[in-house]
Amino acid sequence: MIDITDRVRNKALRDKIVSAEEAAAFIKPGMSIGTSGFTPSGYPKAVPLALAKRIEKEHFKINLWTGASVGPELDGELTKVDGIDFRMPYQTNKDIQKAINTGKVSYCDLDLSSSAQMARYGFMKGNKIDVAIVEAAAITEEGNIIPTTSVGNAPSYVQTADVVIVEVNTSQPLALEGMHDIYVPLDPPYRLPIPVVRPDTRIGTPFIPCDPAKIKFIVGTDITDKVRPLAPVDDVAKKMAGNLIDFLDGEVKAGRMPQNLLPLQSGVGNVANAALSGFINSKYEHLTVYTEVIQDGIFDMIDAGKLDFASGTSLTPSPDGQKRFYENIETYKKKIMLRPEEISNNPEVVRRLGVIAMNTAIEADIYGNINSTLVNGTRMMNGIGGSGDFARNGYLTIFLTQSTAKNGDISSIVPMVSHVDHGQQVVDAIVTEQGVADLRGVCPRERAKLIINNCANPEYRPLLMDYYERALKATMEKGVAHTPHLLKEALSFHVRLAETGTMKVK
Amino acid sequence: MIDITDRVRNKALRDKIVSAEEAAAFIKPGMSIGTSGFTPSGYPKAVPLALAKRIEKEHFKINLWTGASVGPELDGELTKVDGIDFRMPYQTNKDIQKAINTGKVSYCDLDLSSSAQMARYGFMKGNKIDVAIVEAAAITEEGNIIPTTSVGNAPSYVQTADVVIVEVNTSQPLALEGMHDIYVPLDPPYRLPIPVVRPDTRIGTPFIPCDPAKIKFIVGTDITDKVRPLAPVDDVAKKMAGNLIDFLDGEVKAGRMPQNLLPLQSGVGNVANAALSGFINSKYEHLTVYTEVIQDGIFDMIDAGKLDFASGTSLTPSPDGQKRFYENIETYKKKIMLRPEEISNNPEVVRRLGVIAMNTAIEADIYGNINSTLVNGTRMMNGIGGSGDFARNGYLTIFLTQSTAKNGDISSIVPMVSHVDHGQQVVDAIVTEQGVADLRGVCPRERAKLIINNCANPEYRPLLMDYYERALKATMEKGVAHTPHLLKEALSFHVRLAETGTMKVK
Repeated sequence: MIDITDRVRNKALRDKIVSAEEAAAFIKPGMSIGTSGFTPSGYPKAVPLALAKRIEKEHFKINLWTGASVGPELDGELTKVDGIDFRMPYQTNKDIQKAINTGKVSYCDLDLSSSAQMARYGFMKGNKIDVAIVEAAAITEEGNIIPTTSVGNAPSYVQTADVVIVEVNTSQPLALEGMHDIYVPLDPPYRLPIPVVRPDTRIGTPFIPCDPAKIKFIVGTDITDKVRPLAPVDDVAKKMAGNLIDFLDGEVKAGRMPQNLLPLQSGVGNVANAALSGFINSKYEHLTVYTEVIQDGIFDMIDAGKLDFASGTSLTPSPDGQKRFYENIETYKKKIMLRPEEISNNPEVVRRLGVIAMNTAIEADIYGNINSTLVNGTRMMNGIGGSGDFARNGYLTIFLTQSTAKNGDISSIVPMVSHVDHGQQVVDAIVTEQGVADLRGVCPRERAKLIINNCANPEYRPLLMDYYERALKATMEKGVAHTPHLLKEALSFHVRLAETGTMKVK
Repeated sequence: MIDITDRVRNKALRDKIVSAEEAAAFIKPGMSIGTSGFTPSGYPKAVPLALAKRIEKEHFKINLWTGASVGPELDGELTKVDGIDFRMPYQTNKDIQKAINTGKVSYCDLDLSSSAQMARYGFMKGNKIDVAIVEAAAITEEGNIIPTTSVGNAPSYVQTADVVIVEVNTSQPLALEGMHDIYVPLDPPYRLPIPVVRPDTRIGTPFIPCDPAKIKFIVGTDITDKVRPLAPVDDVAKKMAGNLIDFLDGEVKAGRMPQNLLPLQSGVGNVANAALSGFINSKYEHLTVYTEVIQDGIFDMIDAGKLDFASGTSLTPSPDGQKRFYENIETYKKKIMLRPEEISNNPEVVRRLGVIAMNTAIEADIYGNINSTLVNGTRMMNGIGGSGDFARNGYLTIFLTQSTAKNGDISSIVPMVSHVDHGQQVVDAIVTEQGVADLRGVCPRERAKLIINNCANPEYRPLLMDYYERALKATMEKGVAHTPHLLKEALSFHVRLAETGTMKVK
């Protein structure tokens, strides 16, 4: 058993140290479990593994509420033993994705900023959290919990759960202590302004407040975060990042943006990381970041002396980035703060700070509507995550995508998206490796031309323009041409893909 | 000429009193004009009428930025002479709707809370406001402007315009003075928390601050607001309102809502007004309202002693309601405050107060996505208005619609909406006269059954369920069944309507 005595500074609580199996035995069928964890960082590992082993024998299901995506020890193992009934609010694990798309798991996709309050309000299946399981670097003398590489929804789950299980993880450096800023708003009608006015404003405590009496079990482990590699930034991604920087340069030149821009936000994954890479060789200095995930690109910006401060809810580095972070933690720590996702993604704060929201689209349509979640309108990828929180409230809302996918067989620009997560009213610009469509103050008929000509792949432009022109003609004749569409053909690109394997006309 | 001397309390400014024609002569082709006005209340009338006459002879166009919809003297007359090139952010006038849908006017639909800041940021066509035209009840001794029956975006337009034209309207009672609370946030990176913590919190001034040097012309008029009649609340609407109240009763009973609920918001028009009517005979007392439009239903709630306070940006009564308001203005004034739409609709405040957002849908789909703007995905109705501001940030987000339209030929519940303004992530419940679908914590497959069985008209249920079951089977076979759809048929209800005049299968 891992020795965690020193990390449990409250001596009375040391009596609660048990094995993962003993803690997992407490969980009853049908319980709603709220865990720490956000984009495979800071999630509990040992107790879920033990729980999965128990479920394999006893066959029951639980409801699982997390911060965002969690690693294979939690989503993966529990899915493999068919142990999850209900899941919210975001996921990326391949096993659970399969279960969601084959009807085995009921997955409720939520805006991440709302997920904690929906839980506190009693709006989720099961109404309340029975057990919170949170990963900790340590427990303080007062019994408060020091989180690890993410905060996510852990503070609200700890606050509302009847019982708390703490996993003290010795693979997480104690130097993480001090990086967190924990604040849980009161619920209406008592809520007050959230006093964050700059990315570095500290408004809470460096620990998750917890009544020690609620901590029923403490488990030691040294299983590491299973972070995922990032794709190298290729030429197409470089072009996209270059177009983004050019667009922002224009905004600064036109006086619509300060010289050091406004706080940057970028989504999760390769496209987002590539977008950030563009800033490293840019002219910009004294940049700030107000985002949900701290990826490798942010360490690069700190190393390059470009970044003054980054606020997020999770460290989501690649395996290399993780190594780099741990080795230089004292340096990075000065410039990084981790908050609950309710604060990192909060509409109030995002709008106040004037965040530049840069998120990834699965597909965009010729009018600027964005699909971020459902491939072909039916298959759930990861979820909306924080993209809505930032997109709806950003100073400037940008969606990025490569113009094609699957070796050119899929056009990321289509006549009508097969699902909408972000409506055209909130989308200011679309950026691909082809160029930028600046959609501000532009009506749909003009948007179509900008998006087709500036963003679509040249190979698909004639097909898209043909659709638009025929739709324009037909709707003009009927006087219904604000947003020209031919409803019989609007989803034809997707139908063709399903039937022929390509959106191209053979 | 109307005598407005007494209402222009700053004596020096009296020299600027001119005829409407003289003021209109200042406007140059291509200028961007920002006006007061929100849902035919408090918009300028005399100068627009004079401008329309000028344009009829001289043939030129302007860009028109308002608060929301404005009356026939502005949208109607300027459209009739083909005088509007670009229009934002919301409209209801039949003439301009026709022009928008026949390609004569470029209309940019915007979330109302964002429209003022988009203007300040320089994001709209024309980049900046050249001339602000605002209706006033009076001008103070300091040269500040007392608004009339709406605030809308007037404060930001006055702040950013080079030149201000004030229309002092003697049909507007001076007793309106004191009802307004004007606050314009600083722009990022300097913005601070908006300190509204209850619907009645006063945070600004009772006038629109204005440097008297910017006021170039003052025009007197007595043309009245052209408010619109509301439909009587019929049996179907009563059933819908009853279902809404039952749903809220359940929330209170479950302890998820205080005994006097949380601040109510309801959209514009008949359905919204009918929804409010349900509260008059309910058990609820000490209700509050934090909304954009104050309709007749709110006067009824005040008369019935049910309402403690209502905050909005516009008085939008019926002609009868207008009469009632003017006759009892001193009574109503104590319980009503009018704010800029940037504050009445602000995501920060809406979320903090925990508003119950009740808005009208054109159509909803079986997964809970909502279309509020585009009939058959192409024809613009009025615009998104404030529905997104409230829906995305409300404590509880409810959309209301009658289950059918056009004598039953249109089902308001369809397999896939033809346009999405509000994605399923933000929609908590759908209410029709048939019943309520509570969608919180429910995955799409379960949502479909709830919406079809509880909300759709019985006549359309078999058709919808047939679609859902076939979609489920087809997507389950492929392992892509998070949100079952048959893309070839997803819009078939709309296609059938276009081809046969009904969504029914004959």
